[in-house]
Amino acid sequence: MRALQFTDQQLRLTEVQTPERADEALVRVTRAGICATDVAITQGYAGFSGTLGHEFVGIVEHSPEPEWVGKRVVGDINVGCGVCDDCRRDGHHCETREVLGIVARNGAFAEYLSLPVRNLRIVPDSVSDREAVFAEPLAAACRILDQVRIPRDREVVVFGDGKLGQLIAQVLLADGFRPLLVGRHLDKLAVAESVGIAVCRVEEFEADPKSRQSADLVVEATGQAAGFGAALRTVRPRGTVVLKSTFHGEWKLRAEDLVVPEITIVGSRCGNMDAALDLLERRAVVLDPLVSAEFPFEEGIAAFTRATTRGTLKVQLVMDAS
Amino acid sequence: MRALQFTDQQLRLTEVQTPERADEALVRVTRAGICATDVAITQGYAGFSGTLGHEFVGIVEHSPEPEWVGKRVVGDINVGCGVCDDCRRDGHHCETREVLGIVARNGAFAEYLSLPVRNLRIVPDSVSDREAVFAEPLAAACRILDQVRIPRDREVVVFGDGKLGQLIAQVLLADGFRPLLVGRHLDKLAVAESVGIAVCRVEEFEADPKSRQSADLVVEATGQAAGFGAALRTVRPRGTVVLKSTFHGEWKLRAEDLVVPEITIVGSRCGNMDAALDLLERRAVVLDPLVSAEFPFEEGIAAFTRATTRGTLKVQLVMDAS
Repeated sequence: MRALQFTDQQLRLTEVQTPERADEALVRVTRAGICATDVAITQGYAGFSGTLGHEFVGIVEHSPEPEWVGKRVVGDINVGCGVCDDCRRDGHHCETREVLGIVARNGAFAEYLSLPVRNLRIVPDSVSDREAVFAEPLAAACRILDQVRIPRDREVVVFGDGKLGQLIAQVLLADGFRPLLVGRHLDKLAVAESVGIAVCRVEEFEADPKSRQSADLVVEATGQAAGFGAALRTVRPRGTVVLKSTFHGEWKLRAEDLVVPEITIVGSRCGNMDAALDLLERRAVVLDPLVSAEFPFEEGIAAFTRATTRGTLKVQLVMDAS
Repeated sequence: MRALQFTDQQLRLTEVQTPERADEALVRVTRAGICATDVAITQGYAGFSGTLGHEFVGIVEHSPEPEWVGKRVVGDINVGCGVCDDCRRDGHHCETREVLGIVARNGAFAEYLSLPVRNLRIVPDSVSDREAVFAEPLAAACRILDQVRIPRDREVVVFGDGKLGQLIAQVLLADGFRPLLVGRHLDKLAVAESVGIAVCRVEEFEADPKSRQSADLVVEATGQAAGFGAALRTVRPRGTVVLKSTFHGEWKLRAEDLVVPEITIVGSRCGNMDAALDLLERRAVVLDPLVSAEFPFEEGIAAFTRATTRGTLKVQLVMDAS
């Protein structure tokens, strides 16, 4: 089968063996999404080598549990040992876990992928493939709601008008918050505004003294080291900063800037796929405006180039363009 | 009256005016404690100039509420505006707050100090002056219990065998946890061990691979930049690091080291004085072994020198040695 692999520091569309594991489901990928993490991997993040991709929808072709065959599914990307304490919860932090297309397991930019049946979730019929591909990053956005409990009327600021920041703002809005999305790009902010999110350019936001220490919850989703400083300037004493960006970089911070105002910082990664599918089924988020481009799988390299082009939101790979 | 002031980058025992505020209580200080923050201020932290000191016990001499006169009191060190939202809670983060001996308000290393009556707490008769001086740092240790809710059987590690680390370990022990105190100093660790706390030298702890990602809760109380790295190595995925050190220094951290394991970091400062007085009254903490030396107030400069000497825990100033 064909796969889009990152090997020897290079991205290439190549012929590889179709995965064959009797203990896992074989999923024929129909559509996949390019995430900032995929791009970061091609820039050195996580030290991964193999087939990229972890946002997908597909059809189960084989399964150790035959009732799954033919089902349209998305999947949790964390594959734990299945038996440890962490795996009894969700396996997201199992010490020996593999992560689809990120850690020690070939990913979704391929004709087929393999995942344990326990990782799969059936996609409701009313949800299109185009939308279903968002289940994984939407789940990551939903994770914030598990981690931070504050009243809905509190001030919430999301930094970063990229794909993830937009999804986070939509999830917060759907949950009853009134987030302000702060970003650098007028075109991306316009997309957020078109789905009912309050927006502000970062230059204006930072120039306004009222922005300082104004928010009870700040979500950092810029993927830039500078985003952390902006988040710390914006959060209120005793407020919370959620970090959603996995990028290759270093932050500096002064102890007293956290200790004296008693700031809480929460690292936040993968979330619950069921919560994401529920949002999709209820049509509580609007995803079409977030898709900047669709490429046939054969043009995967060009799709990556597009994904790194300024002004681009989600780029999807359509595996079976026939 | 005499006061121990830090002015023009120098510590000096000097004659100053007795505070006179009709809207506040005048407290005759009988005993005070030197905190690491006091020492940090003499090294540039917080940019404070004036009378140092924020750990004290004393007798109310004058008060706008006459029933307070003659009472033996300790005090919350944060003096907020008294009317804002934050002050309706505890005023610890009031935007215009003064902090006794730390921000814009003369402190407790003096014959008299002034505080609003709402800041004062009456010391139970069974609690000695020597113990009562610990109310303020004990409250800071208790603050952790307000901020972090985890089951008592979880692994808890406290880094730092100094005054604050010892108090934190005692407070956690009194609350039903089984903290491990990790430190550099055999003599200080022996003090902790003498009151029933499990201890370990940091070299041994860090050399043991089982220490890595072992703790659900890590409290950083070393006052050293290196303590933060040690805390991050020790905390389990989805665990919490509480930062208690207010020191003048910078940390570096990689975004992915917080985001991927979903670590929570909690800045923690002042606490509830009532909780501290309750611990003192119940004799749930053992403080005598933590007092390394007592100096008459006149020898305040020497007391500071002693407080910065290796192996020293709490140094107290006795104001009325007669």
